[in-house]
Amino acid sequence: MDSHLTTKATRWGICSAGCISRDFSHCLKSLPSSEHEIVAVAARDLKRAQSFAKDFGILTAYGSYLELAKDPDVDVVYIGTIHPEHHRVTLLFISHGKNVLVEKPAAMNLKQLKEMTSLAKEKKVFFMEAVWTRFFPLYQRILNEMSNETIGKARVLRLELAIPISNRERIRSKVLGGGALLDMGVYPLNIAVFLFGKPDDISVQGTMMGDTEVDEGACVIFKYNDGRMAQLLYNVTFKGMNEGVIYGTHGLKESPVVPVSHSEYVMDLVDKIKSKTGLRYDVDE
Amino acid sequence: MDSHLTTKATRWGICSAGCISRDFSHCLKSLPSSEHEIVAVAARDLKRAQSFAKDFGILTAYGSYLELAKDPDVDVVYIGTIHPEHHRVTLLFISHGKNVLVEKPAAMNLKQLKEMTSLAKEKKVFFMEAVWTRFFPLYQRILNEMSNETIGKARVLRLELAIPISNRERIRSKVLGGGALLDMGVYPLNIAVFLFGKPDDISVQGTMMGDTEVDEGACVIFKYNDGRMAQLLYNVTFKGMNEGVIYGTHGLKESPVVPVSHSEYVMDLVDKIKSKTGLRYDVDE
Repeated sequence: MDSHLTTKATRWGICSAGCISRDFSHCLKSLPSSEHEIVAVAARDLKRAQSFAKDFGILTAYGSYLELAKDPDVDVVYIGTIHPEHHRVTLLFISHGKNVLVEKPAAMNLKQLKEMTSLAKEKKVFFMEAVWTRFFPLYQRILNEMSNETIGKARVLRLELAIPISNRERIRSKVLGGGALLDMGVYPLNIAVFLFGKPDDISVQGTMMGDTEVDEGACVIFKYNDGRMAQLLYNVTFKGMNEGVIYGTHGLKESPVVPVSHSEYVMDLVDKIKSKTGLRYDVDE
Repeated sequence: MDSHLTTKATRWGICSAGCISRDFSHCLKSLPSSEHEIVAVAARDLKRAQSFAKDFGILTAYGSYLELAKDPDVDVVYIGTIHPEHHRVTLLFISHGKNVLVEKPAAMNLKQLKEMTSLAKEKKVFFMEAVWTRFFPLYQRILNEMSNETIGKARVLRLELAIPISNRERIRSKVLGGGALLDMGVYPLNIAVFLFGKPDDISVQGTMMGDTEVDEGACVIFKYNDGRMAQLLYNVTFKGMNEGVIYGTHGLKESPVVPVSHSEYVMDLVDKIKSKTGLRYDVDE
């Protein structure tokens, strides 16, 4: 069928003109313009939106998110704000009938995420957390090999993600949603849930970051009733080897650490880890 | 000084004629006979003791441990029995005034070990757990580099030891002290305690081995009040990468997994892990 050739392109609006929105727009521009086009960008500072629009050849620039929400030419909004804004901004766009792709972490906690998914259902719009690696063919292959028992019965999954970014202001700031869990932790959590499923029990030990109110990292153990375990490590104070390894009774399979998402499961785990380590953001109160 | 040339050699007795006693005797024979000599070997089966004696050129073979304990020509006894025997046999030799080097794990639990050390103090004899790698120059070097902060401040230590030996009868048998903790687990526990010290808190998730009453492995987290963590993995159902890595704020340092011992600390940890995983041996009741 050639019908897609005559289908209108999906019309994207970009919310926030920061670094991650640039990465996303570069990728989107690499696709055929007959399939995807960026029709508008919004930032709280109009000048930043205009500069972004110029860089990517976007016709419309807004100095507020509300204007973007009201733009009838926008089908779907990509949200690339800092994560404490995800909840409020997502609700804004969904309430105006927009479909939404929100950067990870989708929310600051499960309560926020449930409000977002609930409104999306009510408004009958598409709503998804932007966990791109979920679509990597690699993960389907790993799942296939696990179900074929290429490495025998999977017993232990070991994942780590550690990058030394603790000197960045955003990472050190509780108000900006800093700390290791929401920036680094969600990656191994996502992969573990994707490959092994939701754990039956978890153990965690976390460390807060010196003079801040956020965490520098944690070690987490997932336990499954069938005896499998996952051993996770994330940290913002050092560079890890950042491997992923699945140990089976007949061998092992290594993979780079890349994220996949079962958003609500993962956000539920995020909340559990916060409650066990004492990490709390203002929105959690 | 050449005075050691005229000192009498240390006279060893070997208790049990099994595999580990053979390894130990091979090593001992590689040292100058003016320093160490094996004067007797004992096994519950006299024929095995005689065969062992023949292989190593040992003059005396006994068919009971008691005879070895009463031999006035023996200065120190190496105990290479299965570990459920370590407690009883060590007490036998110490009560007869012998110095003792007992294979690891020194005991089945901390209570047993305390009885052993207590009797050794009372009888004023030398008593040590045979954790040979404690004497590797490598560990002194790692400790030096950690105190020099070559890799910055140490944050996380990751250690694993996994070897697929779960099909062995001894490993599957609770009566024979089987399971992963006492055979594999004590290695990463020892190294973590040696390099990072006694933890302030531990978390653990363990898995029992299918149709047995012993464990197939566990994931353990050590937490230290200064924020450091150690992430440990041991298992008898698969072959691990068996690495040790120390992550510091300026880099990382890898080492092979080799054991060191702070016997009582480690045995205390063994007991804590057993109580958290539900693993219990008869002697624990």
